[in-house]
Amino acid sequence: MTTNTMLKLAARPKGLVTRDNFEISQGPVPEPNDGEFVVKVEMISIDPAMRGWMNEGKSYVPPVGIGEVMRALAGGTVIASKHPRFKEGDMVTGLLGVQEYAVSDGQSITAIDTSSASLADWLGGLGMPGITAYFGLLEIGQPKEGETVLVSAASGAVGSIVGQIAKIKGCRVVGIAGGAEKCAYVTDELGFDACIDYKNDDVFAGIKEHCPNGVDVYFENVGGTIFDAALSHMNTFGRIPVCGMISAYNATSAPDGPKNLRFVLVNRLTMRGFIVFDFFDRYPEAIKALSEWNEKGLIKFRQDVREGGVHAYPDVLNELFSGGNNGKLVLKV
Amino acid sequence: MTTNTMLKLAARPKGLVTRDNFEISQGPVPEPNDGEFVVKVEMISIDPAMRGWMNEGKSYVPPVGIGEVMRALAGGTVIASKHPRFKEGDMVTGLLGVQEYAVSDGQSITAIDTSSASLADWLGGLGMPGITAYFGLLEIGQPKEGETVLVSAASGAVGSIVGQIAKIKGCRVVGIAGGAEKCAYVTDELGFDACIDYKNDDVFAGIKEHCPNGVDVYFENVGGTIFDAALSHMNTFGRIPVCGMISAYNATSAPDGPKNLRFVLVNRLTMRGFIVFDFFDRYPEAIKALSEWNEKGLIKFRQDVREGGVHAYPDVLNELFSGGNNGKLVLKV
Repeated sequence: MTTNTMLKLAARPKGLVTRDNFEISQGPVPEPNDGEFVVKVEMISIDPAMRGWMNEGKSYVPPVGIGEVMRALAGGTVIASKHPRFKEGDMVTGLLGVQEYAVSDGQSITAIDTSSASLADWLGGLGMPGITAYFGLLEIGQPKEGETVLVSAASGAVGSIVGQIAKIKGCRVVGIAGGAEKCAYVTDELGFDACIDYKNDDVFAGIKEHCPNGVDVYFENVGGTIFDAALSHMNTFGRIPVCGMISAYNATSAPDGPKNLRFVLVNRLTMRGFIVFDFFDRYPEAIKALSEWNEKGLIKFRQDVREGGVHAYPDVLNELFSGGNNGKLVLKV
Repeated sequence: MTTNTMLKLAARPKGLVTRDNFEISQGPVPEPNDGEFVVKVEMISIDPAMRGWMNEGKSYVPPVGIGEVMRALAGGTVIASKHPRFKEGDMVTGLLGVQEYAVSDGQSITAIDTSSASLADWLGGLGMPGITAYFGLLEIGQPKEGETVLVSAASGAVGSIVGQIAKIKGCRVVGIAGGAEKCAYVTDELGFDACIDYKNDDVFAGIKEHCPNGVDVYFENVGGTIFDAALSHMNTFGRIPVCGMISAYNATSAPDGPKNLRFVLVNRLTMRGFIVFDFFDRYPEAIKALSEWNEKGLIKFRQDVREGGVHAYPDVLNELFSGGNNGKLVLKV
């Protein structure tokens, strides 16, 4: 292969992305300059945050520019290097973009060991989603033994791990997921105590039924009406790590906010937004814990690997927002 | 006087209270049993939280029952006592209710020294509003020197003290208040750096203009559209102590929530609701600091003392929600 196929942002999407928002571009496989290396990208992580990166305006990272390769966490093999730390044959993950070959100076890149876990695992349970779950639940949620933890997007990349860690910590864990199949996975495979099917059940009534002692930690992934229902059931001094608000990511006008926000005051709740990058210095701690729990069989990861290469990116991304994925979504290059 | 005039809750209000929601009732002045004392109530504190106490449903305290004397912080003189700690002639404050005479077992009651500060001060800057400002700003807001603190209801009982403490801590302090007179008071008398008049100015534009470095602490007293405007200007890792949401207290249907809640995530904000009673064990620390600052002239209190006795309660309470008061509202008995 001497050609690099890249997916670039061509226009800022309104609502769900369409193929027209991107252009496929060809170029030569890059050569590394001094201090750089080139990675053959093998697997691209498909994450809800990507949708926000396409929007103009202030956020925690600058938006992807029009004409730039779409930002993505991805993993692959170093095929050429003039970098002191990374050498040919190393497997790495990091912000490599939606493209077949990426040149890097090592910024944001981590070397991984694929003898102990697959590349997909390093993009999932042992990667950004797992680390997000670890710090969001333990640092911000601060669950105590015997408390009740409610997790939205419970079958997703982050939520599935949040709930499993909460079980390890001795909590009652209730998930919210879309559809009977996902709910069965959450309870039967992941070991949650209960799961509410938001596509078929009344979420408010479901929380009331399955959280008879109220909710101490609500791990917020979705926003919207589910957030409102959760707010109504929080115990005094409850904690709400705000990890995502996926229901709003494709909104074309500002969505309605929670009507029950007064419970923040009445029940003295703490809501705290976080981004996994805030904990960058402590990633090794999370990876060590997640790896050990995984080896002991205490937490499971599930990947949903899609074929189609960089061309398939727009369609695969939209699966996240329709809930079409089962587990951590990754795109094979 | 041998008659006690009491104001009792007769019906749960919808929206603003009306006189019909209460009944005036007469009874004998109570006699103390062993372990009790009787207070002649001289001044009743009129607080936004009172409106919430009239509603049915779960809150941080049980609602006032129909037929019960309306709950109120108040102050007065002990006129008879069979209590080991409180004796005739003592001045006290506490939950004495909207009535002329109250019997108490000492629960929630504090003895005060009216030689150093007036009874109105002990219900205002040295009382619940001052203590609320102290812990809300310092414990939850955690302002650092040089940061920007934005305060809603800035001329009110709590907001006015929040801003003055923030100035002592070396912050840039911007208020939001209703009307030119209140804004002038906030800047000229209280020493805030600027004040936005929400009745005449665009709050969003005002925050942008007066907080050129963004907002690090937003002290939330009001909710609604002002909250939304503040959310849009928060700096990364900003803090939002949620002390009140006065705009919603008389709402007859659940009010719209903030449309900009996604900023909690993007800017990693911490929103935390609190009730002053949560800090009960540490009240002496707050009262000591507030008294010292007041003696040094570093903070000022302003009371708005209304005449009319318990009969005037419904009309005086509504002044809080129309913004008709200037400073801490108290009702003379």
